[in-house]
Amino acid sequence: MRVGVIGGGQLARMMVPPAIALGIEIHVLAEEPGLSAAIAATAVGDYRDIETVLAFAAHVDVITFDHEHVPQRVLAALVTAGHAVHPGPDALAVAQDKIVMRERLTDIGAPVPDWAVIHDAASLGAFLDAHGGQAVVKTPRGGYDGKGVRVVRAPGDVDDWFAQAAEGTREGLLVEELVDFRRELAQLVARRPSGEVRAWPLVETVQQGGVCAEVFAPAPFAGELPVAARALAERIATELGVTGVLAVELFETSDGRLLINELAMRPHNTGHWTIDGAVTSQFEQHLRAVLDLPLGDPSPITPWSVMVNILGGPVGATMPERYGVAFGDRPEVKFHSYGKQSRPGRKVGHVTATGAELEDTVARARAAAGFFQA
Amino acid sequence: MRVGVIGGGQLARMMVPPAIALGIEIHVLAEEPGLSAAIAATAVGDYRDIETVLAFAAHVDVITFDHEHVPQRVLAALVTAGHAVHPGPDALAVAQDKIVMRERLTDIGAPVPDWAVIHDAASLGAFLDAHGGQAVVKTPRGGYDGKGVRVVRAPGDVDDWFAQAAEGTREGLLVEELVDFRRELAQLVARRPSGEVRAWPLVETVQQGGVCAEVFAPAPFAGELPVAARALAERIATELGVTGVLAVELFETSDGRLLINELAMRPHNTGHWTIDGAVTSQFEQHLRAVLDLPLGDPSPITPWSVMVNILGGPVGATMPERYGVAFGDRPEVKFHSYGKQSRPGRKVGHVTATGAELEDTVARARAAAGFFQA
Repeated sequence: MRVGVIGGGQLARMMVPPAIALGIEIHVLAEEPGLSAAIAATAVGDYRDIETVLAFAAHVDVITFDHEHVPQRVLAALVTAGHAVHPGPDALAVAQDKIVMRERLTDIGAPVPDWAVIHDAASLGAFLDAHGGQAVVKTPRGGYDGKGVRVVRAPGDVDDWFAQAAEGTREGLLVEELVDFRRELAQLVARRPSGEVRAWPLVETVQQGGVCAEVFAPAPFAGELPVAARALAERIATELGVTGVLAVELFETSDGRLLINELAMRPHNTGHWTIDGAVTSQFEQHLRAVLDLPLGDPSPITPWSVMVNILGGPVGATMPERYGVAFGDRPEVKFHSYGKQSRPGRKVGHVTATGAELEDTVARARAAAGFFQA
Repeated sequence: MRVGVIGGGQLARMMVPPAIALGIEIHVLAEEPGLSAAIAATAVGDYRDIETVLAFAAHVDVITFDHEHVPQRVLAALVTAGHAVHPGPDALAVAQDKIVMRERLTDIGAPVPDWAVIHDAASLGAFLDAHGGQAVVKTPRGGYDGKGVRVVRAPGDVDDWFAQAAEGTREGLLVEELVDFRRELAQLVARRPSGEVRAWPLVETVQQGGVCAEVFAPAPFAGELPVAARALAERIATELGVTGVLAVELFETSDGRLLINELAMRPHNTGHWTIDGAVTSQFEQHLRAVLDLPLGDPSPITPWSVMVNILGGPVGATMPERYGVAFGDRPEVKFHSYGKQSRPGRKVGHVTATGAELEDTVARARAAAGFFQA
């Protein structure tokens, strides 16, 4: 059994340990040498180049992804050549373009914020007028970790993006209501091609500057929401034909409703806690799913898991340089380094604490993470 | 931080996932291509060749081991060249030769079976006469998994070994009383060069034909033995200057005493349950210890963990070929494949079940393992 992963980042890296455990061969097509998943990089090349990707695919049984940026023409070439691709091109199309995502979610009746496609300041102005004078504009493609997202309050606030769009595509920008939310949640599920779906517990996520900072698993004080969130994510996975892990990022609105923020069709930062806190991690489950093997038990193994991301501090420092003090202080916390040089704001690793009491678990996770932040 | 592991077997393989998680570079010197630890094999060569080992060591910060067979002259050359070696040559000498082991354990007052060194049938006959007509004879070097061990009842029962020894060394054979034991136990600890020692819970091991078949963690019905076993293993680690994981295999005698059977100075089959059942696995702990980093918490994360080895069945079958049925039946069990072709009796992987009740956990682990046994 050989799984090929396109992209050499930390998500590919974190697929390697469960692949080793299960005896599944893992091959990575990395963009350049020395990336996070270098230990499994059997090829280095451009994922936008059809010949490069087809040559890579010839050595594996199924192709999956570290990211969602592989162009549809490359995905189509893989399928035409007879390769198994999970998630498939049709599902990935929904994750690759935020306008397509809103259209498809609206089609299946999933709850989303009010949205529209805009092509100029006038249409943005009309949307603002209808939504209390504020909104969020997103570029349909290429955004992540807060990039390509802007809160707007005047029709001219994204004139620079309209100018860029005019040169490039004609697809326009996505505008959405600025959701009045109580907190952010994430529901992860995995689905295999033959249809089986398994869900991890609903989690709460804390974002800082558009970047995931902390995750509490399960989501505290969630009332009836876990049941609704799980049913929603399972329905989306099934109706969109997602294979592998699907992450559904959610708003809990101030009046207690769930609205879908984003979808990701791969292991996701809000699921890193599963490595240390669940019977089956999202990375093992993704491998099982894309190989169409029976899925593992996603149950938590501890009452609470808390994950805190390590964002890069001073340039040049790596996590292991600080292990002496961090390990000594927190022998029970699990440390994860992505093998990256630190840059301000860059995700270079994460820590996960588990425990019987939420407050104590949060405190220990934050203390452990603190050793790596300037 | 770069750890070099001499030997490319499953123990080196299982060090790779925690190395990836922690961002520790791991290099393996494998005996040949395609072994269990091939994914981290940066060199292929003979561990008995000084030049090969020195060249490998030049790229890492510390040298450790997948097995205990590296000759003392090679270890001495590493130390002379200034390389950190853990466990060190003096400690390893005790694990490499069963006569040296008995001598050292006797020196420090650790409880061992009656033993003697014999050079001929007459001295074996004298030992048999003094021990009720039965005993165990062991070759001092090279034995494992029941090889090099023979139960004897007549002075001539190991004449073939005496004949071989006469051609080779003058060291003789080890003879020991045949211990009347209630069951077998194992106590694992880890020690770092600066002195910190951490102990996992005492476990019970079930051997079949000299090979570890099952491990129950913690050892059920052990009464006061865990306290004594832990103190004993910690004392041995400290007095012998062991660095890394030390496994102390023990007999619980029919009259309730502990006697030391064997020592191993590396991660050990009786500690595989820690991957899925403890906060810090023996493989992560070994990496921390040999790098002289603070040790992790060895506490169990679940009331019971049960490990069952997979011994090879029909030639040619690999574990993944049977995942479809095994995963479907036991979604909560953790499966570990060593990436080996199956041969009758060969250890090709293991499974670990965890749970709240021992009997149920044993049943689930055995059921899972059963899918891989002919």
